[in-house]
Amino acid sequence: MSQKMFERIALIGIGLIGSSIARVIRREGLAGEVVISTRSEATLKRAEELNLGDRYTTDAAQAVEGADLVIISVPVGSSGAVAELIAPALMSGAIVTDVGSTKASVIAQMQPHLPANVQFIPGHPLAGTEKSGPDAGFAELFENRWCILTPLEETDATALETLSAFWRACGSNVDTMDPQHHDMVLAMVSHLPHIIAYNIVGTADDLQTVTKSEVIKYSASGFRDFTRLAASDPTMWRDVCLHNKDAILEMLSRFSEDLASLQRAIRWGDGDKLFDLFTRTRDVRRSIIDAGQEIDSPDFGRIAVKSEKPA
Amino acid sequence: MSQKMFERIALIGIGLIGSSIARVIRREGLAGEVVISTRSEATLKRAEELNLGDRYTTDAAQAVEGADLVIISVPVGSSGAVAELIAPALMSGAIVTDVGSTKASVIAQMQPHLPANVQFIPGHPLAGTEKSGPDAGFAELFENRWCILTPLEETDATALETLSAFWRACGSNVDTMDPQHHDMVLAMVSHLPHIIAYNIVGTADDLQTVTKSEVIKYSASGFRDFTRLAASDPTMWRDVCLHNKDAILEMLSRFSEDLASLQRAIRWGDGDKLFDLFTRTRDVRRSIIDAGQEIDSPDFGRIAVKSEKPA
Repeated sequence: MSQKMFERIALIGIGLIGSSIARVIRREGLAGEVVISTRSEATLKRAEELNLGDRYTTDAAQAVEGADLVIISVPVGSSGAVAELIAPALMSGAIVTDVGSTKASVIAQMQPHLPANVQFIPGHPLAGTEKSGPDAGFAELFENRWCILTPLEETDATALETLSAFWRACGSNVDTMDPQHHDMVLAMVSHLPHIIAYNIVGTADDLQTVTKSEVIKYSASGFRDFTRLAASDPTMWRDVCLHNKDAILEMLSRFSEDLASLQRAIRWGDGDKLFDLFTRTRDVRRSIIDAGQEIDSPDFGRIAVKSEKPA
Repeated sequence: MSQKMFERIALIGIGLIGSSIARVIRREGLAGEVVISTRSEATLKRAEELNLGDRYTTDAAQAVEGADLVIISVPVGSSGAVAELIAPALMSGAIVTDVGSTKASVIAQMQPHLPANVQFIPGHPLAGTEKSGPDAGFAELFENRWCILTPLEETDATALETLSAFWRACGSNVDTMDPQHHDMVLAMVSHLPHIIAYNIVGTADDLQTVTKSEVIKYSASGFRDFTRLAASDPTMWRDVCLHNKDAILEMLSRFSEDLASLQRAIRWGDGDKLFDLFTRTRDVRRSIIDAGQEIDSPDFGRIAVKSEKPA
């Protein structure tokens, strides 16, 4: 058990990320009290049934009263509205953070509303699954994942260390980064992969020469790997696309340029070029496994292998 | 245990697929004798160390002598050369099949060489992992996966049923299909996903604004899902691209057209269009899970969830 780090933590938004934070706070005993707020009464009721916090309210301003840590876990397009709601009720000295997948836009939306006497430290835990809602969360979500904090110029070093220690207590590794660089990195490692996955699943869904039932039956030959990302929360991803537009368009343009070149190699039968690319990409996975960010089992470990060797 | 279905099975090629077939034949007792042949002496030696068969030879013609089933598991670009090698030694009445990911090209390469007194039934088990070589195989690889057979006009119904029964004994579900339709379906469900995965990993690898170490560290936010397919065998996938060119170019063109439209929606901030696509694609994964072709656990089951609910 870690020790109590905050007297009162307010969680605004209680979906996959918010509810996972609630669970790990509880497991590690990181707060004296957890107050949960979300707009939807049905979701709030579910959070209460799951016993995720100590108090529950649909009033975000009420939730943040007296909280020394406020974590906003809402789609990035709602960050500004939440900041405006909670600003008058924030306690002096409180740390205010978020978990949004884009950072420059969140800062632009939130900062104008927040009073000077709180410590606003934008954050992004790189963790999630394709499931959404308070039932989807679990305390282990952040274990050995990275949490990127993008402190502002005026961020106090002590507050930054306190929030970093909180995320480490949740199981994360913590990095700090410039918000613009965060948005560029995430456009590549997260936003582009999700957009490509959504797109290919859409392409398959639209085909007429290949039926939908064929796509589904034979999906284990490759296609199904893309469907996980393409099952992610639509609201969250719509907002990411709208709020990290420039970096995403830049990465999309590089991807499409490379794909055009690959398509040309296929058309003209340039086997050497194909072989070179297909060899080079193999090493990337090995590095990810070595970095502890992927498991080594074939097929994501989906296949239960009963016997390693023939009798 | 199933019963012996063939007196002698010759396996030409002993990589991931060939060695998995060898293991399931052994486990189920499907053959009186298994003869293994591959060009590489090192691979053949490894197959012998793994005790995958009963006899081993680098001479494919010698391997097929007296075999009532011959299974060719080589990159599709080598199918013609193998057919030419083995043709003079094939036993009258033998069933000759393959496991290649493209069918029209394999038929065009092999059929001219094969004598009229053998039953040539092209096949494709839709099973595999990102690993290659005889060590990568396992007997459970084909369980609940589909195996597509593309019989020719002259294929004997009894021979087709015998080969279907063999694949069912290996754990597969069997479908038959026209070779051209197979190539179109696989271009969508398998070849396009692999090409897109290779491409995005290549794009990430080439970036300079985002370092390679950042791509690796933060890959759990989406990118790593693509690296599995992009770690597949380069020779196999070069050959697939060269041998199913037309269908692949058709699917690539649809994918790129859809991506251009999605990119435009991002550029112009068309949130409704993004939301609609991102909602529609969610159902596809659900259907694949319902069809038993994917597991239901979040994140492909990669995360070990220790507690389902907070204490």
